[in-house]
Amino acid sequence: MKIDILTIFPEMFESVLNASILGRAREKGLLEIRCTDIRPFSASKHKNTDDYPFGGGAGMVMMPQPIMDAMRSVTGGDFHGKRIYMSPRGSVLTTRKARELSKEEHLVLLCGHYEGVDQRVLDACVDEEISIGDYILTGGELAAMVLVDCVSRFIPGVLGSEESPEEESFSDGLLEYPQYTRPAVWEGVPVPEVLLSGHHARIQAWRREQSLRITQKNRPDLLKTAELTAKERKMLEETEPCS
Amino acid sequence: MKIDILTIFPEMFESVLNASILGRAREKGLLEIRCTDIRPFSASKHKNTDDYPFGGGAGMVMMPQPIMDAMRSVTGGDFHGKRIYMSPRGSVLTTRKARELSKEEHLVLLCGHYEGVDQRVLDACVDEEISIGDYILTGGELAAMVLVDCVSRFIPGVLGSEESPEEESFSDGLLEYPQYTRPAVWEGVPVPEVLLSGHHARIQAWRREQSLRITQKNRPDLLKTAELTAKERKMLEETEPCS
Repeated sequence: MKIDILTIFPEMFESVLNASILGRAREKGLLEIRCTDIRPFSASKHKNTDDYPFGGGAGMVMMPQPIMDAMRSVTGGDFHGKRIYMSPRGSVLTTRKARELSKEEHLVLLCGHYEGVDQRVLDACVDEEISIGDYILTGGELAAMVLVDCVSRFIPGVLGSEESPEEESFSDGLLEYPQYTRPAVWEGVPVPEVLLSGHHARIQAWRREQSLRITQKNRPDLLKTAELTAKERKMLEETEPCS
Repeated sequence: MKIDILTIFPEMFESVLNASILGRAREKGLLEIRCTDIRPFSASKHKNTDDYPFGGGAGMVMMPQPIMDAMRSVTGGDFHGKRIYMSPRGSVLTTRKARELSKEEHLVLLCGHYEGVDQRVLDACVDEEISIGDYILTGGELAAMVLVDCVSRFIPGVLGSEESPEEESFSDGLLEYPQYTRPAVWEGVPVPEVLLSGHHARIQAWRREQSLRITQKNRPDLLKTAELTAKERKMLEETEPCS
Protein backbone atom coordinates (compact mmCIF):
# COMPACT_ATOMS: atom_id res chain seq x y z
CA MET A 1 0.00 0.00 0.00
CA LYS A 2 1.15 3.49 -0.86
CA ILE A 3 0.29 6.52 1.27
CA ASP A 4 1.05 10.10 0.27
CA ILE A 5 0.75 12.84 2.87
CA LEU A 6 0.46 16.49 1.84
CA THR A 7 1.44 18.87 4.64
CA ILE A 8 3.21 22.11 5.46
CA PHE A 9 4.97 20.32 8.37
CA PRO A 10 6.55 17.21 6.82
CA GLU A 11 9.19 17.07 9.56
CA MET A 12 6.46 16.33 12.14
CA PHE A 13 5.99 12.83 10.76
CA GLU A 14 9.52 11.57 10.92
CA SER A 15 9.77 10.15 14.43
CA VAL A 16 6.27 8.67 14.32
CA LEU A 17 6.57 6.92 10.96
CA ASN A 18 9.93 5.39 11.87
CA ALA A 19 8.86 3.96 15.22
CA SER A 20 7.40 0.64 16.28
CA ILE A 21 5.04 -1.25 13.99
CA LEU A 22 4.87 1.46 11.32
CA GLY A 23 8.65 1.59 11.05
CA ARG A 24 8.81 -2.19 10.71
CA ALA A 25 6.06 -2.27 8.09
CA ARG A 26 7.93 0.30 6.02
CA GLU A 27 11.19 -1.62 6.31
CA LYS A 28 9.46 -4.80 5.18
CA GLY A 29 8.10 -2.95 2.15
CA LEU A 30 4.47 -3.54 3.18
CA LEU A 31 3.83 0.17 3.40
CA GLU A 32 5.29 2.98 1.36
CA ILE A 33 4.74 6.39 2.96
CA ARG A 34 5.85 9.65 1.42
CA CYS A 35 5.42 13.11 2.94
CA THR A 36 5.25 16.00 0.49
CA ASP A 37 5.76 19.58 1.60
CA ILE A 38 3.05 21.82 0.15
CA ARG A 39 5.02 25.05 0.59
CA PRO A 40 7.50 24.72 -2.33
CA PHE A 41 4.49 24.42 -4.67
CA SER A 42 3.33 27.94 -3.84
CA ALA A 43 3.50 30.23 -6.86
CA SER A 44 3.74 33.30 -4.63
CA LYS A 45 7.01 35.13 -4.21
CA HIS A 46 7.40 34.35 -0.51
CA LYS A 47 6.05 30.79 -0.83
CA ASN A 48 2.97 31.68 1.18
CA THR A 49 0.39 28.96 1.69
CA ASP A 50 -2.34 30.93 3.48
CA ASP A 51 -4.26 34.19 3.24
CA TYR A 52 -7.16 36.02 4.96
CA PRO A 53 -10.65 34.55 4.67
CA PHE A 54 -13.15 36.22 2.38
CA GLY A 55 -16.08 37.46 4.43
CA GLY A 56 -13.93 38.11 7.51
CA GLY A 57 -13.34 36.13 10.69
CA ALA A 58 -10.37 35.05 12.77
CA GLY A 59 -7.43 33.13 11.40
CA MET A 60 -6.05 32.32 7.99
CA VAL A 61 -7.20 29.97 5.24
CA MET A 62 -4.94 27.76 3.14
CA MET A 63 -4.83 28.90 -0.49
CA PRO A 64 -6.04 26.57 -3.23
CA GLN A 65 -3.13 26.83 -5.70
CA PRO A 66 -0.26 25.29 -3.68
CA ILE A 67 -2.48 22.41 -2.56
CA MET A 68 -3.76 21.70 -6.06
CA ASP A 69 -0.26 21.63 -7.51
CA ALA A 70 1.04 19.41 -4.69
CA MET A 71 -1.91 17.07 -5.27
CA ARG A 72 -1.20 16.94 -9.00
CA SER A 73 2.43 16.12 -8.34
CA VAL A 74 1.62 13.01 -6.24
CA THR A 75 -1.44 11.74 -8.10
CA GLY A 76 -0.64 12.54 -11.68
CA GLY A 77 -2.98 14.60 -13.82
CA ASP A 78 -5.80 12.07 -13.44
CA PHE A 79 -5.96 12.19 -9.62
CA HIS A 80 -5.59 8.47 -9.05
CA GLY A 81 -5.77 7.17 -5.50
CA LYS A 82 -8.29 7.81 -2.75
CA ARG A 83 -7.88 11.45 -1.70
CA ILE A 84 -8.85 12.29 1.88
CA TYR A 85 -8.89 15.63 3.68
CA MET A 86 -8.30 15.27 7.44
CA SER A 87 -10.90 17.59 8.91
CA PRO A 88 -13.05 17.94 12.03
CA ARG A 89 -15.93 18.37 9.57
CA GLY A 90 -15.59 14.88 8.10
CA SER A 91 -17.25 11.62 9.01
CA VAL A 92 -15.68 10.04 12.07
CA LEU A 93 -12.99 7.36 11.80
CA THR A 94 -13.96 3.94 13.14
CA THR A 95 -12.38 0.49 13.09
CA ARG A 96 -14.75 -0.46 10.28
CA LYS A 97 -13.70 2.56 8.20
CA ALA A 98 -10.02 1.77 8.81
CA ARG A 99 -10.51 -1.80 7.58
CA GLU A 100 -12.26 -0.51 4.45
CA LEU A 101 -9.47 1.96 3.67
CA SER A 102 -6.83 -0.76 4.13
CA LYS A 103 -8.09 -2.28 0.86
CA GLU A 104 -7.12 0.78 -1.17
CA GLU A 105 -3.89 0.72 -3.16
CA HIS A 106 -3.09 4.40 -2.80
CA LEU A 107 -4.25 6.88 -0.16
CA VAL A 108 -3.52 10.60 -0.33
CA LEU A 109 -4.01 12.45 2.96
CA LEU A 110 -4.27 16.24 2.90
CA CYS A 111 -3.46 17.97 6.20
CA GLY A 112 -5.00 21.40 6.73
CA HIS A 113 -3.90 24.12 9.10
CA TYR A 114 -5.10 27.48 10.38
CA GLU A 115 -8.87 27.94 9.96
CA GLY A 116 -9.05 25.41 7.14
CA VAL A 117 -8.59 25.09 3.43
CA ASP A 118 -10.20 26.99 0.56
CA GLN A 119 -13.36 25.05 -0.27
CA ARG A 120 -12.77 25.19 -4.03
CA VAL A 121 -9.67 23.03 -3.93
CA LEU A 122 -11.46 20.51 -1.69
CA ASP A 123 -14.32 20.36 -4.21
CA ALA A 124 -11.83 19.93 -7.03
CA CYS A 125 -9.57 17.17 -5.75
CA VAL A 126 -10.78 15.50 -2.53
CA ASP A 127 -12.96 12.37 -2.41
CA GLU A 128 -13.77 12.37 1.27
CA GLU A 129 -13.30 14.20 4.57
CA ILE A 130 -12.43 12.20 7.68
CA SER A 131 -12.31 13.33 11.30
CA ILE A 132 -10.63 11.37 14.10
CA GLY A 133 -12.97 12.73 16.78
CA ASP A 134 -15.01 15.62 18.14
CA TYR A 135 -12.15 17.87 19.14
CA ILE A 136 -9.93 20.44 17.42
CA LEU A 137 -6.30 19.82 16.58
CA THR A 138 -3.69 22.38 15.59
CA GLY A 139 -3.56 20.77 12.17
CA GLY A 140 -4.38 17.64 10.25
CA GLU A 141 -0.95 16.08 10.81
CA LEU A 142 -1.75 14.15 14.00
CA ALA A 143 -5.05 13.06 12.48
CA ALA A 144 -3.20 11.70 9.43
CA MET A 145 -0.77 9.79 11.68
CA VAL A 146 -3.69 8.27 13.57
CA LEU A 147 -5.37 7.22 10.34
CA VAL A 148 -2.14 5.70 8.97
CA ASP A 149 -1.61 3.75 12.20
CA CYS A 150 -5.18 2.39 12.31
CA VAL A 151 -5.30 1.50 8.64
CA SER A 152 -1.90 -0.18 8.48
CA ARG A 153 -2.89 -2.65 11.22
CA PHE A 154 -5.26 -4.24 8.71
CA ILE A 155 -2.65 -4.72 5.99
CA PRO A 156 -1.66 -8.40 5.91
CA GLY A 157 1.80 -8.94 7.42
CA VAL A 158 1.98 -5.67 9.35
CA LEU A 159 1.03 -7.21 12.68
CA GLY A 160 2.97 -10.26 13.84
CA SER A 161 1.25 -13.63 14.06
CA GLU A 162 0.94 -13.07 17.82
CA GLU A 163 -1.18 -10.00 17.29
CA SER A 164 -4.52 -9.69 15.59
CA PRO A 165 -6.50 -6.59 14.76
CA GLU A 166 -9.72 -8.51 15.31
CA GLU A 167 -9.21 -9.71 18.84
CA GLU A 168 -9.24 -6.30 20.43
CA SER A 169 -11.54 -3.63 21.74
CA PHE A 170 -14.55 -2.87 19.53
CA SER A 171 -14.27 -5.99 17.40
CA ASP A 172 -17.35 -7.40 19.17
CA GLY A 173 -18.71 -3.94 19.87
CA LEU A 174 -17.62 -4.05 23.54
CA LEU A 175 -14.64 -2.63 25.41
CA GLU A 176 -11.84 -4.96 26.34
CA TYR A 177 -11.75 -6.94 29.59
CA PRO A 178 -8.94 -6.32 32.12
CA GLN A 179 -5.61 -8.00 31.46
CA TYR A 180 -3.11 -9.41 33.95
CA THR A 181 0.42 -10.73 33.65
CA ARG A 182 3.12 -11.94 35.99
CA PRO A 183 3.76 -11.84 38.88
CA ALA A 184 0.64 -13.62 40.16
CA VAL A 185 0.84 -11.47 43.28
CA TRP A 186 2.16 -7.93 42.83
CA GLU A 187 2.54 -5.46 45.69
CA GLY A 188 0.22 -7.71 47.69
CA VAL A 189 -2.50 -7.82 45.00
CA PRO A 190 -3.28 -11.22 43.43
CA VAL A 191 -4.66 -11.65 39.90
CA PRO A 192 -8.29 -12.87 39.75
CA GLU A 193 -8.28 -16.57 40.64
CA VAL A 194 -10.25 -17.67 37.61
CA LEU A 195 -7.38 -16.66 35.31
CA LEU A 196 -5.09 -19.18 37.03
CA SER A 197 -7.69 -21.98 36.87
CA GLY A 198 -6.77 -23.22 33.40
CA HIS A 199 -10.52 -23.63 32.84
CA HIS A 200 -10.97 -22.12 29.38
CA ALA A 201 -14.75 -21.80 29.41
CA ARG A 202 -14.81 -20.15 32.82
CA ILE A 203 -12.10 -17.71 31.75
CA GLN A 204 -14.08 -16.84 28.61
CA ALA A 205 -17.24 -16.28 30.63
CA TRP A 206 -15.42 -14.09 33.17
CA ARG A 207 -13.83 -11.99 30.44
CA ARG A 208 -17.14 -11.52 28.64
CA GLU A 209 -18.81 -10.37 31.86
CA GLN A 210 -15.97 -7.95 32.57
CA SER A 211 -16.24 -6.53 29.06
CA LEU A 212 -19.96 -6.01 29.52
CA ARG A 213 -19.52 -4.26 32.86
CA ILE A 214 -16.73 -1.98 31.68
CA THR A 215 -18.74 -1.05 28.59
CA GLN A 216 -21.78 -0.34 30.74
CA LYS A 217 -19.69 1.90 32.98
CA ASN A 218 -17.57 3.81 30.43
CA ARG A 219 -19.48 3.64 27.15
CA PRO A 220 -23.13 2.70 27.63
CA ASP A 221 -23.75 4.04 24.09
CA LEU A 222 -21.94 1.01 22.66
CA LEU A 223 -24.40 -1.42 24.30
CA LYS A 224 -27.17 -0.22 21.98
CA THR A 225 -25.50 -1.78 18.96
CA ALA A 226 -23.48 -4.63 20.54
CA GLU A 227 -24.71 -8.18 20.06
CA LEU A 228 -25.86 -9.40 23.46
CA THR A 229 -27.79 -12.47 24.55
CA ALA A 230 -31.08 -12.04 26.38
CA LYS A 231 -29.37 -13.26 29.56
CA GLU A 232 -26.66 -10.64 29.21
CA ARG A 233 -29.17 -7.85 28.70
CA LYS A 234 -30.96 -8.97 31.85
CA MET A 235 -27.75 -9.02 33.88
CA LEU A 236 -26.94 -5.45 32.82
CA GLU A 237 -30.42 -4.22 33.65
CA GLU A 238 -30.22 -5.72 37.12
CA THR A 239 -26.95 -4.00 37.90
CA GLU A 240 -27.81 -0.65 36.38
CA PRO A 241 -27.27 2.11 38.94
CA CYS A 242 -30.67 3.44 40.05
CA SER A 243 -29.86 7.09 39.47
CA MET B 1 1.20 23.53 32.74
CA LYS B 2 3.37 20.48 33.16
CA ILE B 3 2.78 17.26 31.23
CA ASP B 4 4.61 14.01 31.89
CA ILE B 5 4.36 11.20 29.37
CA LEU B 6 5.25 7.63 30.32
CA THR B 7 6.05 5.48 27.29
CA ILE B 8 8.29 2.75 25.96
CA PHE B 9 8.78 4.83 22.76
CA PRO B 10 9.88 8.28 23.97
CA GLU B 11 11.64 8.97 20.65
CA MET B 12 8.25 8.93 18.87
CA PHE B 13 7.31 12.25 20.43
CA GLU B 14 10.26 14.32 19.42
CA SER B 15 9.27 15.65 16.01
CA VAL B 16 5.65 16.24 17.04
CA LEU B 17 6.35 18.11 20.27
CA ASN B 18 8.90 20.38 18.60
CA ALA B 19 6.70 21.41 15.66
CA SER B 20 4.27 24.23 15.11
CA ILE B 21 2.15 25.54 17.97
CA LEU B 22 3.32 22.96 20.52
CA GLY B 23 6.96 23.76 19.84
CA ARG B 24 6.28 27.48 20.24
CA ALA B 25 4.34 26.97 23.47
CA ARG B 26 7.23 25.00 24.92
CA GLU B 27 9.75 27.63 23.89
CA LYS B 28 7.63 30.33 25.50
CA GLY B 29 7.56 28.29 28.72
CA LEU B 30 3.75 27.95 28.66
CA LEU B 31 4.00 24.21 28.49
CA GLU B 32 6.57 21.91 30.00
CA ILE B 33 6.49 18.43 28.49
CA ARG B 34 8.72 15.60 29.59
CA CYS B 35 8.79 12.08 28.12
CA THR B 36 9.95 9.32 30.45
CA ASP B 37 11.03 5.96 29.13
CA ILE B 38 9.41 3.17 31.15
CA ARG B 39 11.93 0.52 30.13
CA PRO B 40 14.90 1.52 32.33
CA PHE B 41 12.60 1.13 35.36
CA SER B 42 12.18 -2.59 34.73
CA ALA B 43 13.66 -4.65 37.53
CA SER B 44 14.06 -7.65 35.20
CA LYS B 45 17.47 -8.64 33.92
CA HIS B 46 16.72 -7.86 30.27
CA LYS B 47 14.67 -4.75 31.05
CA ASN B 48 11.49 -6.44 29.83
CA THR B 49 8.30 -4.45 30.07
CA ASP B 50 5.77 -7.08 28.98
CA ASP B 51 4.83 -10.71 29.59
CA TYR B 52 2.15 -13.24 28.57
CA PRO B 53 -1.42 -12.67 29.76
CA PHE B 54 -2.78 -14.84 32.56
CA GLY B 55 -5.72 -16.82 31.24
CA GLY B 56 -4.32 -17.02 27.72
CA GLY B 57 -5.03 -15.05 24.58
CA ALA B 58 -3.04 -13.35 21.85
CA GLY B 59 -0.42 -10.72 22.50
CA MET B 60 1.52 -9.48 25.48
CA VAL B 61 0.54 -7.41 28.51
CA MET B 62 2.64 -4.65 30.05
CA MET B 63 3.93 -5.61 33.49
CA PRO B 64 2.92 -3.58 36.53
CA GLN B 65 6.31 -3.03 38.18
CA PRO B 66 8.12 -0.90 35.57
CA ILE B 67 5.06 1.33 35.13
CA MET B 68 4.56 1.80 38.86
CA ASP B 69 8.18 2.77 39.39
CA ALA B 70 8.14 5.16 36.40
CA MET B 71 4.95 6.72 37.78
CA ARG B 72 6.51 7.13 41.22
CA SER B 73 9.54 8.80 39.69
CA VAL B 74 7.50 11.53 37.98
CA THR B 75 4.79 12.09 40.56
CA GLY B 76 6.66 11.59 43.80
CA GLY B 77 5.49 9.12 46.40
CA ASP B 78 2.15 10.88 46.79
CA PHE B 79 1.06 10.58 43.14
CA HIS B 80 0.33 14.26 42.61
CA GLY B 81 -1.06 15.37 39.26
CA LYS B 82 -3.93 14.02 37.21
CA ARG B 83 -2.91 10.56 35.99
CA ILE B 84 -4.51 9.39 32.74
CA TYR B 85 -4.18 6.09 30.91
CA MET B 86 -4.64 6.49 27.14
CA SER B 87 -6.87 3.54 26.28
CA PRO B 88 -9.58 2.59 23.79
CA ARG B 89 -11.55 1.54 26.86
CA GLY B 90 -11.75 5.04 28.31
CA SER B 91 -14.33 7.76 27.96
CA VAL B 92 -14.01 9.58 24.65
CA LEU B 93 -12.08 12.84 24.33
CA THR B 94 -14.17 15.88 23.38
CA THR B 95 -13.51 19.61 23.15
CA ARG B 96 -15.27 20.03 26.49
CA LYS B 97 -13.03 17.44 28.14
CA ALA B 98 -9.91 19.08 26.67
CA ARG B 99 -10.96 22.45 28.08
CA GLU B 100 -11.50 20.86 31.50
CA LEU B 101 -8.08 19.19 31.49
CA SER B 102 -6.38 22.47 30.48
CA LYS B 103 -7.13 23.73 34.00
CA GLU B 104 -4.96 21.05 35.63
CA GLU B 105 -1.46 21.99 36.75
CA HIS B 106 0.11 18.62 36.08
CA LEU B 107 -1.03 15.84 33.74
CA VAL B 108 0.62 12.43 33.60
CA LEU B 109 -0.21 10.41 30.48
CA LEU B 110 0.49 6.67 30.49
CA CYS B 111 0.85 5.10 27.03
CA GLY B 112 0.12 1.38 26.79
CA HIS B 113 1.22 -1.06 24.14
CA TYR B 114 0.59 -4.63 23.06
CA GLU B 115 -2.71 -5.99 24.42
CA GLY B 116 -2.79 -3.50 27.27
CA VAL B 117 -1.52 -2.97 30.77
CA ASP B 118 -1.83 -5.12 33.90
CA GLN B 119 -5.05 -3.98 35.55
CA ARG B 120 -3.52 -3.87 39.04
CA VAL B 121 -1.19 -1.02 38.23
CA LEU B 122 -4.04 0.90 36.59
CA ASP B 123 -6.12 0.43 39.74
CA ALA B 124 -3.19 1.56 41.86
CA CYS B 125 -2.08 4.74 40.15
CA VAL B 126 -4.42 5.95 37.39
CA ASP B 127 -7.27 8.45 37.90
CA GLU B 128 -8.95 8.13 34.56
CA GLU B 129 -8.89 6.36 31.18
CA ILE B 130 -9.34 8.43 28.02
CA SER B 131 -9.84 7.25 24.44
CA ILE B 132 -9.45 9.47 21.40
CA GLY B 133 -11.97 7.48 19.33
CA ASP B 134 -13.51 4.14 18.42
CA TYR B 135 -10.51 2.64 16.68
CA ILE B 136 -7.39 0.76 17.70
CA LEU B 137 -3.93 2.28 17.64
CA THR B 138 -0.61 0.47 17.86
CA GLY B 139 -0.03 2.18 21.20
CA GLY B 140 -1.09 5.07 23.36
CA GLU B 141 1.59 7.40 22.02
CA LEU B 142 -0.42 8.97 19.19
CA ALA B 143 -3.41 9.27 21.52
CA ALA B 144 -1.25 11.13 24.05
CA MET B 145 0.00 13.51 21.32
CA VAL B 146 -3.59 14.21 20.26
CA LEU B 147 -4.61 14.91 23.85
CA VAL B 148 -1.61 17.22 24.42
CA ASP B 149 -2.40 19.13 21.22
CA CYS B 150 -6.11 19.57 22.05
CA VAL B 151 -5.53 20.52 25.66
CA SER B 152 -2.73 22.98 25.02
CA ARG B 153 -4.94 25.05 22.70
CA PHE B 154 -6.93 26.09 25.77
CA ILE B 155 -3.92 27.26 27.75
CA PRO B 156 -3.86 31.08 27.70
CA GLY B 157 -1.15 32.41 25.39
CA VAL B 158 -0.64 29.22 23.39
CA LEU B 159 -2.75 30.37 20.44
CA GLY B 160 -1.97 33.77 18.92
CA SER B 161 -4.48 36.59 19.25
CA GLU B 162 -5.57 35.87 15.67
CA GLU B 163 -6.65 32.38 16.61
CA SER B 164 -9.27 31.34 19.06
CA PRO B 165 -10.16 27.86 20.25
CA GLU B 166 -13.81 28.93 20.58
CA GLU B 167 -14.49 30.10 17.06
CA GLU B 168 -14.07 26.74 15.42
CA SER B 169 -15.90 23.53 14.66
CA PHE B 170 -17.97 22.11 17.53
CA SER B 171 -17.94 25.28 19.62
CA ASP B 172 -21.60 25.82 18.75
CA GLY B 173 -22.24 22.11 18.28
CA LEU B 174 -22.15 22.38 14.47
CA LEU B 175 -19.47 21.70 11.87
CA GLU B 176 -17.66 24.62 10.35
CA TYR B 177 -18.88 26.45 7.23
CA PRO B 178 -16.70 26.46 4.08
CA GLN B 179 -13.84 28.95 3.94
CA TYR B 180 -12.47 30.83 0.95
CA THR B 181 -9.41 32.98 0.40
CA ARG B 182 -7.76 34.75 -2.51
CA PRO B 183 -7.88 34.72 -5.47
CA ALA B 184 -11.56 35.60 -5.87
CA VAL B 185 -11.62 33.47 -9.01
CA TRP B 186 -9.40 30.40 -9.00
CA GLU B 187 -9.14 28.01 -11.96
CA GLY B 188 -12.36 29.52 -13.23
CA VAL B 189 -14.27 29.07 -9.97
CA PRO B 190 -15.45 32.21 -8.13
CA VAL B 191 -15.97 32.40 -4.36
CA PRO B 192 -19.63 32.71 -3.28
CA GLU B 193 -20.75 36.26 -4.04
CA VAL B 194 -22.10 36.93 -0.57
CA LEU B 195 -18.59 36.75 0.91
CA LEU B 196 -17.51 39.68 -1.24
CA SER B 197 -20.58 41.76 -0.35
CA GLY B 198 -19.16 43.31 2.81
CA HIS B 199 -22.64 42.82 4.31
CA HIS B 200 -21.84 41.35 7.72
CA ALA B 201 -25.33 40.11 8.63
CA ARG B 202 -25.82 38.39 5.28
CA ILE B 203 -22.41 36.71 5.58
CA GLN B 204 -23.26 35.49 9.08
CA ALA B 205 -26.58 34.10 7.89
CA TRP B 206 -24.98 32.36 4.91
CA ARG B 207 -22.28 30.79 7.10
CA ARG B 208 -24.81 29.58 9.64
CA GLU B 209 -26.90 27.94 6.91
CA GLN B 210 -23.81 26.28 5.43
CA SER B 211 -22.85 24.96 8.88
CA LEU B 212 -26.32 23.52 9.33
CA ARG B 213 -26.31 21.83 5.92
CA ILE B 214 -22.83 20.34 6.31
CA THR B 215 -23.72 19.04 9.77
CA GLN B 216 -26.92 17.51 8.42
CA LYS B 217 -24.97 15.80 5.66
CA ASN B 218 -21.87 14.58 7.53
CA ARG B 219 -22.88 14.36 11.19
CA PRO B 220 -26.65 14.35 11.67
CA ASP B 221 -26.03 12.99 15.19
CA LEU B 222 -24.72 16.43 16.23
CA LEU B 223 -28.03 18.13 15.34
CA LYS B 224 -29.74 16.36 18.22
CA THR B 225 -27.81 18.38 20.79
CA ALA B 226 -27.02 21.58 18.85
CA GLU B 227 -28.93 24.74 19.73
CA LEU B 228 -31.16 25.51 16.76
CA THR B 229 -33.99 27.97 16.28
CA ALA B 230 -37.43 26.68 15.31
CA LYS B 231 -36.93 28.19 11.84
CA GLU B 232 -33.64 26.34 11.44
CA ARG B 233 -35.19 23.02 12.46
CA LYS B 234 -37.93 23.56 9.90
CA MET B 235 -35.43 24.34 7.14
CA LEU B 236 -33.52 21.13 7.85
CA GLU B 237 -36.70 19.03 7.88
CA GLU B 238 -37.73 20.42 4.51
CA THR B 239 -34.42 19.55 2.87
CA GLU B 240 -34.05 16.13 4.44
CA PRO B 241 -33.43 13.55 1.72
CA CYS B 242 -36.54 11.39 1.28
CA SER B 243 -34.72 8.08 1.49
